[in-house]
Amino acid sequence: MVSDPQNSHPKVVSETPLSEPVKGKTSSRKREVLLSRKISILTRDGPVSGPIESLHRTVGMHMATMHGLKFSIFPQEPDRKMLKFPDHQVAGHCAHDGVLGPLVDDSGRFYKPLQNDSRGSNELAFYTSLSTDARIPDHIRKYFPTFYGTKVINASDGSGLHPHIVLEDLVSSYENPSITDVKIGSRTWYPEASEDYIRKCLQKDRKTSTISLGFRISGMKIFGSKDSGFWKPERKFLQNLSSEDAKLVLKKFVSSNVPADNGEQPDCSFVSDVFGGSSGILAQLLELKQWFEVQTIFHFYSCSVLMVYEKVPVVKGDSSGADRAVVKLVDFAHVQDGKGVIDHNFLGGLCSLIRFISDILATQEDKCISNGFLLSI
Amino acid sequence: MVSDPQNSHPKVVSETPLSEPVKGKTSSRKREVLLSRKISILTRDGPVSGPIESLHRTVGMHMATMHGLKFSIFPQEPDRKMLKFPDHQVAGHCAHDGVLGPLVDDSGRFYKPLQNDSRGSNELAFYTSLSTDARIPDHIRKYFPTFYGTKVINASDGSGLHPHIVLEDLVSSYENPSITDVKIGSRTWYPEASEDYIRKCLQKDRKTSTISLGFRISGMKIFGSKDSGFWKPERKFLQNLSSEDAKLVLKKFVSSNVPADNGEQPDCSFVSDVFGGSSGILAQLLELKQWFEVQTIFHFYSCSVLMVYEKVPVVKGDSSGADRAVVKLVDFAHVQDGKGVIDHNFLGGLCSLIRFISDILATQEDKCISNGFLLSI
Repeated sequence: MVSDPQNSHPKVVSETPLSEPVKGKTSSRKREVLLSRKISILTRDGPVSGPIESLHRTVGMHMATMHGLKFSIFPQEPDRKMLKFPDHQVAGHCAHDGVLGPLVDDSGRFYKPLQNDSRGSNELAFYTSLSTDARIPDHIRKYFPTFYGTKVINASDGSGLHPHIVLEDLVSSYENPSITDVKIGSRTWYPEASEDYIRKCLQKDRKTSTISLGFRISGMKIFGSKDSGFWKPERKFLQNLSSEDAKLVLKKFVSSNVPADNGEQPDCSFVSDVFGGSSGILAQLLELKQWFEVQTIFHFYSCSVLMVYEKVPVVKGDSSGADRAVVKLVDFAHVQDGKGVIDHNFLGGLCSLIRFISDILATQEDKCISNGFLLSI
Repeated sequence: MVSDPQNSHPKVVSETPLSEPVKGKTSSRKREVLLSRKISILTRDGPVSGPIESLHRTVGMHMATMHGLKFSIFPQEPDRKMLKFPDHQVAGHCAHDGVLGPLVDDSGRFYKPLQNDSRGSNELAFYTSLSTDARIPDHIRKYFPTFYGTKVINASDGSGLHPHIVLEDLVSSYENPSITDVKIGSRTWYPEASEDYIRKCLQKDRKTSTISLGFRISGMKIFGSKDSGFWKPERKFLQNLSSEDAKLVLKKFVSSNVPADNGEQPDCSFVSDVFGGSSGILAQLLELKQWFEVQTIFHFYSCSVLMVYEKVPVVKGDSSGADRAVVKLVDFAHVQDGKGVIDHNFLGGLCSLIRFISDILATQEDKCISNGFLLSI
């Protein structure tokens, strides 16, 4: 009989995304959605895949069966909070096929596995110094995920206990967040890195839009509607966009007619709500830029700008709006000491992204004016 | 007997710098200064070097003798304007040891030899489009040398007639200009270049401060006094400065106690006059930055920011002041089409230089205030 190599139950190593969000108490619909996923579990004889055959909740655990095997469907944390794979991860290492990935809990925390090499210690050192360094102004601190220390929990790949960095789950309060992850900078390597690492990064920087645009889009997920669900373009396509394509994709990010791939122009319905206004994404990016023009503390190699917002139905109307557009910085495994120099690499890339976004906003506002409409903001 | 391989007279191929500026009509002092130079001339049997033995002016030409050979000391242009080696070149290809270099005339024009390969055609194409492109605002155009077309003149290396780009001689109106040439950007190569060119550039970018600071100082020449003359640090030293050394060198650029290398701190006497004020170097760099944040027409690889000013004695006082601090962009052999993207590489490096200069200015102003002085501007 196949069984778990380390514990009494086999461990889940991958699962297909949920077809719709599952929140709150167990219901027949929630069971249906969970059962519709294809799961891989790790057994002594290797991984076994298939649909879940049955699902039931026991003391503090979700138990499932497949091929007659019983296993816990979410790894369990010592304090008995439910941990699961993030629903809205668009870039970075995902928990799949035995690869260690992040987990989230129900209380809005994000558990990022501490990488065993210098990346892990580097990221932890960054978060620690960020939370204690008085030189970082409060209005800038809000662009970083809140740091809650570290915790040893069961790893998502079923390999047992592993230390994790505990962070704010940036999308936990969103129902259907639209997300773009943009890796900033025209160079992802730093002078002190190994020759091998530099060579690999340079190769990727040249193959992607990193060199040409000063950034590459690492991931994107745009909510269309309850019927159409999310549009999640291929990472390979996103990473090597021309200037024109980058503009098109960023327009799609703020459009209602996203998933249609029939040559239809994106309608940019949400451009003013999301990019515009005094607290929109452009204003936030400009605030960050102002800091990057002077800060000489950190150099953020391979770090991303995450842009998130929520499409919301407008009460008593046919149209919909957008809400809570935020910018966050993520991924600090390669942050270096600034040594008294500004992060000209990050700043240049950030300014390039800003130029795209302000251009889209300006074109759309011009269009509104030429159509005889008044701007909504 | 050795003689000129092509013409009746041998050609000058290099000369040591003038010990002091020589302007205006021939005088005994001027003759003395000119005679003190070591000259190389090109003969049929190769180059011959030595001091000039005698000097006299004949119809439209300065004639000199050395080892019994007669030669014209300045190459002569067809329209009989006097051409000579620039006195104040701090970077780029200099006319020496048979290398083709730029020439200047007495009417404020700078003759840059058109390079035979794509660099020459590229630079010419840039100047041509710059002077006709309506998208470049007038307040930005002033940062580029005026372009007067091309002209075929005798090359400085004695190789005969050669096409030259005719530009404004940026320092012709200065008596003793202090000059810094800063090659901007953390990458001097562009994606479309050959693999060999990319490899060479990358190697140099990593060996110099290009990667770390986002710029490298390619040359510098600071006027001390009539007695001490110019201080011209070694190019190798300048190109690979740490953050601290870059700050020190930029402070020296605006100091009166420049050439002293006895550990004395630079006094930054001219910092307010040169870097500060509404029309000083910082203000000019910020105006350029504003344009680079939006312009998507050109990408300026391997291009330099030239900073020039003049130290002038203040009438009826012991101290001295500084005058006519200007910023110019030079060297456009590697300018590329912007393809709808801002020049994030140049912009990042420019912002890094701006941070250094504003930091020096702020520190100095703080010092003045803490010393109980009022700022002079």
